[in-house]
Amino acid sequence: MLFMPSGLRGRVPIGTTVLQAAQRLGVDLESICGGQGKCRKCQVLPQQGEFAKHGIVSRRENLSELSATELMQQSKNRLKDGRRLGCNARILGDLVVDVPEESQQHKQHIAKAITAYDIQVQPALHLYTVTLPEPDMHSPLSDKRRMQQALVSEFDLPVMDCEMTQLRLLQPALVKGKRQITVAVYQFQQIIGIWPGVKAEAYGLAVDLGSTTIAAQLCNLRTGEVVATADTMNPQIRFGEDLMSRVSYVMMNEGGDVAMTQVVREAFNQLARRAVKKAGIQLEDILDMTVVANPIMHHLFLGIDPTPLGTAPFTLTTDQMQVIRAADIGIELHAEARVCTLPCIAGHIGADTAGVILSERPDLAEEYVLLVDVGTNAEIVLGNRNRLLAASSPTGPAFEGAQISSGQRAAPGAIERVRIDPETLEPRFRVIGCDVWSDDPEFAEKSARVGVSGICGSGIIEVIAEMYLSGVIDEDGVIGPIVGKSTDRIVVDGRTYSYVIREGDRSIRITQNDVRAIQLGKAALHAGTRLLLDYMGIEKVDRIGLAGAFGSHIDVKYAMVLGMIPDCNLDKVGSVGNAAGTGARIALLNFPSRREISEILPKVEKIETALEPKFQEYFIDAMAIPHKTDRFEELAKFVTLPATKPKAEINLGDDRNRRSSRRRRSRT
Amino acid sequence: MLFMPSGLRGRVPIGTTVLQAAQRLGVDLESICGGQGKCRKCQVLPQQGEFAKHGIVSRRENLSELSATELMQQSKNRLKDGRRLGCNARILGDLVVDVPEESQQHKQHIAKAITAYDIQVQPALHLYTVTLPEPDMHSPLSDKRRMQQALVSEFDLPVMDCEMTQLRLLQPALVKGKRQITVAVYQFQQIIGIWPGVKAEAYGLAVDLGSTTIAAQLCNLRTGEVVATADTMNPQIRFGEDLMSRVSYVMMNEGGDVAMTQVVREAFNQLARRAVKKAGIQLEDILDMTVVANPIMHHLFLGIDPTPLGTAPFTLTTDQMQVIRAADIGIELHAEARVCTLPCIAGHIGADTAGVILSERPDLAEEYVLLVDVGTNAEIVLGNRNRLLAASSPTGPAFEGAQISSGQRAAPGAIERVRIDPETLEPRFRVIGCDVWSDDPEFAEKSARVGVSGICGSGIIEVIAEMYLSGVIDEDGVIGPIVGKSTDRIVVDGRTYSYVIREGDRSIRITQNDVRAIQLGKAALHAGTRLLLDYMGIEKVDRIGLAGAFGSHIDVKYAMVLGMIPDCNLDKVGSVGNAAGTGARIALLNFPSRREISEILPKVEKIETALEPKFQEYFIDAMAIPHKTDRFEELAKFVTLPATKPKAEINLGDDRNRRSSRRRRSRT
Repeated sequence: MLFMPSGLRGRVPIGTTVLQAAQRLGVDLESICGGQGKCRKCQVLPQQGEFAKHGIVSRRENLSELSATELMQQSKNRLKDGRRLGCNARILGDLVVDVPEESQQHKQHIAKAITAYDIQVQPALHLYTVTLPEPDMHSPLSDKRRMQQALVSEFDLPVMDCEMTQLRLLQPALVKGKRQITVAVYQFQQIIGIWPGVKAEAYGLAVDLGSTTIAAQLCNLRTGEVVATADTMNPQIRFGEDLMSRVSYVMMNEGGDVAMTQVVREAFNQLARRAVKKAGIQLEDILDMTVVANPIMHHLFLGIDPTPLGTAPFTLTTDQMQVIRAADIGIELHAEARVCTLPCIAGHIGADTAGVILSERPDLAEEYVLLVDVGTNAEIVLGNRNRLLAASSPTGPAFEGAQISSGQRAAPGAIERVRIDPETLEPRFRVIGCDVWSDDPEFAEKSARVGVSGICGSGIIEVIAEMYLSGVIDEDGVIGPIVGKSTDRIVVDGRTYSYVIREGDRSIRITQNDVRAIQLGKAALHAGTRLLLDYMGIEKVDRIGLAGAFGSHIDVKYAMVLGMIPDCNLDKVGSVGNAAGTGARIALLNFPSRREISEILPKVEKIETALEPKFQEYFIDAMAIPHKTDRFEELAKFVTLPATKPKAEINLGDDRNRRSSRRRRSRT
Repeated sequence: MLFMPSGLRGRVPIGTTVLQAAQRLGVDLESICGGQGKCRKCQVLPQQGEFAKHGIVSRRENLSELSATELMQQSKNRLKDGRRLGCNARILGDLVVDVPEESQQHKQHIAKAITAYDIQVQPALHLYTVTLPEPDMHSPLSDKRRMQQALVSEFDLPVMDCEMTQLRLLQPALVKGKRQITVAVYQFQQIIGIWPGVKAEAYGLAVDLGSTTIAAQLCNLRTGEVVATADTMNPQIRFGEDLMSRVSYVMMNEGGDVAMTQVVREAFNQLARRAVKKAGIQLEDILDMTVVANPIMHHLFLGIDPTPLGTAPFTLTTDQMQVIRAADIGIELHAEARVCTLPCIAGHIGADTAGVILSERPDLAEEYVLLVDVGTNAEIVLGNRNRLLAASSPTGPAFEGAQISSGQRAAPGAIERVRIDPETLEPRFRVIGCDVWSDDPEFAEKSARVGVSGICGSGIIEVIAEMYLSGVIDEDGVIGPIVGKSTDRIVVDGRTYSYVIREGDRSIRITQNDVRAIQLGKAALHAGTRLLLDYMGIEKVDRIGLAGAFGSHIDVKYAMVLGMIPDCNLDKVGSVGNAAGTGARIALLNFPSRREISEILPKVEKIETALEPKFQEYFIDAMAIPHKTDRFEELAKFVTLPATKPKAEINLGDDRNRRSSRRRRSRT
């Protein structure tokens, strides 16, 4: 008996079913119904001919004839191409069988988009279908005990306990399923779900709970497939735009934490309802959930007052992975669905960073990896297999398009690319959802559907770098007219100037405040990174991964022009997608990874930027535009339009010299 | 270093505190505050003089001088008679110290009233007081981790998890307690309670949930003391007097099980509120609870539809011990209080019988023990260390005073003893709560407070035995006038006769139906017992324990006259009190006993009386009064008033001959 493609082989008694043989030999062959010919998951393809390499001559007639069940399934077209049901076909002699991809259980590898490794599907819970013997007055066994015995005899699975809410469903399910039930077993220990008959699929939800956005991925826990996604704004925004204003709200308002906990949980429920609707399943089909979030969101979600996280020493109540019952915190999924929050690193570095680490696994890397997750705060992780450092830097929400006058989320209609003609200072741009630039004749027509509604984070980075390169702002970030150039793009806006990208009713402009917000953000990011480089004793990194929605849209060249990220070969800088969310999905689909991340995190060294005198120094240094980089000239060429007459002087000298080159233009 | 009275001794480094020495040597010395001199539980009495037997000369000056803490406690009169605080006094040389009774932890033995053994107090949860270091910005440890580290360093107790409801309280408690907190640890694994500062006591509730009555014992989990008791009628009675009528209610009424579950849980809550009020504590001080109940009450309490228990094959959903969170089933104690229901044996033999077994431990006995718990059903356990049998027999509620015309519960005012003069047929009686017989001149005065309200189970047994012995009923149980005797105690009552115990507005009488109910009950009990004796292959038992309120009041001689219990030396027959309730208390106070009873129960052989043809035969045989016993003549002498002229022929012959002696009196 030889199984392909695994190559596992062995001798089994004549009459053994293929499924039994597979189970004995450790072959990965799916079976949900417990060998009753109902689930059709154990299909195999018997081979014909000589397998010289393995020394076996395989004959299809060495399997028992098609059973009534198989004939029935064939007639319904559910058993094709010479396939057999592993639970029905009995082995009568030498045989090679192929286990098709779709009959392999729990071993699917789901490729993440642009990520370090594939996810091996090994969820926290599995479904088992068993048929219990009829109750018998001569044997006073409870049905619970019969269920336990069936799990042992059919799956060799001793299950200690069953949740009370499910125990109540046991006898009704036995009646409805004619003594056949499917149970969900959590961590091979505890029954958390009971259904009548066969239930083939269970689902899980991986949630990235951001200060601004909440994004959920609904996954099939057997195949690992993402069957639906949904996202929504974090409704806590009405209590405060950024984290600190929300903590302030709690400090100033009795019960403020409870209110914020309630709204975020309700948002979870809405997300879950939308996701199941998209996927055509029920809320009760969701049995597991993982959550990544920054520490304040994390604590509020768990119902823990985040006040201590708002002031030094920023003490977490818990930094550990917490597993609780969804129903206990008002999350409406299956009655016994579990929620697992990933662990936190420190008061400023949360489970979202744990998600990024789980997704990118810098702890396995040989080279120095820098991971940056830009949100309202930037979480920065630097290191390799020998050492990991982490810090959080207060970048503010500007990179997300928040607190920017024309800013918006990265959504259709948002300007994401900007070029400024250094001669005419005229801009051209592209918006999300439209594939031509704004100076294309077809733009008006093609952009009509999405419109032009604002500018998102990547657009802001680009426009400010372009404004600098075209001379609209100086190295201190001051917007002003350029001597000898006439343009109606630079307009007086109160006591400062603005640059107009688009005129009209909904004019889109970059104000002086917008530039300041970006300057503060990029300086904070730069200073945090530099501190970690100092600690690590290195000057440049081998690879940079930019996480988050921001990282997905940004043109890394512009980020480097602005000095947001340190020196690195440009081809080693890239988006790692929503790595925090991917980490949540990994934790959802691969149960062992939960233990791994819990073991990695305590080893991460936390650098508290607020305690480092150098942080302020680096921060002030990094306010100027551009920030000094070895590669600036090269980058500038690469970035700008054919640099025929670059009007802006590019300061490649020492930062401190810069101040002497200020005020080179007259103010009108 | 020698500790008395344990006799434990060893060498310790000079400067070691007495408490540390005790902990190292395994001496039972209490400490709650973790050695901070606050709880004063670790008081010891240093000895002076030569302990020749032990080869030690003990000197009090071999302890460090009184510390500031000790001086302060002395000044407040909290440290008397030369006692020292074990955590403050340091050992400087040879010493013998005495550990007073009140400084010994968890080793109190609580004597049960009239039971087989004492309870060793070893609860499922313990309280620990720890002081956490201040949070420190240079160390990003969460307070949860600090708490875990403190439990390890101070109590060598690695605690894995903490319930989320309590984690929320951690930081507020640390603020309020100035970094000192007390935690409750369940099964040495899980933190289920957090309080600021020192909390000295936790409480538990042991509940006996009967079809008619619910009785709770509130216990101090450290000392084992019962600090309050409370009982109430089972409010499910309004859905049906007996078990089967309640199951019928569920079958006939959609949602009937939910309604019954709700009312019984609300009754638990009321009981708990009354008990804590009596004890002067709060509901939140109760952290653990154990429940014994028959299978139907047990399932309804857990919210499981008991319908399958109402019809063959009487399948339990669960026969195992279930531990759940009280709040999950609407029981309002501490937010994380646990409820543990004892395991069941079979569809008719429940956790109440498990309680009786745990209380009486027949599985440890050398001799044959018969345990009978008489309620609406009688649960019967027979056996010894080699083999245990159990059965349930449908006795009906008559023995509890229910469905008896003048019946009532055993409460003040209930007739509990009855004697009938065989000459005059005049009765005399005693009521609960009055210490003289009704023919005593002082009776009117002394019984005024309690009144005479009805007749309870033990009174019914006695009056029916006395009615037989005085000839008022014949061996078939028919009430009728006696030839040649004039009495107004036997009156026509419709188509049958009644015997009047007390005349007046609230006349108390025994009707023909009352006699029939007792006949049916005692026949069922007899048949069940006889079946078990058959199975065991024995004819008599060595010891009989009568459990329940009924067993406490019954005069066993009368029970034997009626044939309720089999032959046994009378001095080996006795009440074992509310053994089911005692079992609940044992499970509450002694955690290892929960595992023990879970291991004993599956070994108990269940005899299903309904499946046994012989049961019917035995039942019919046992309807007659008296039932044949070897000792009947002896008993009859012992029981009756000076038997000058016994009017009743006592039939000592074979049961079957009895029919020939019927109708010996004329009906008027």
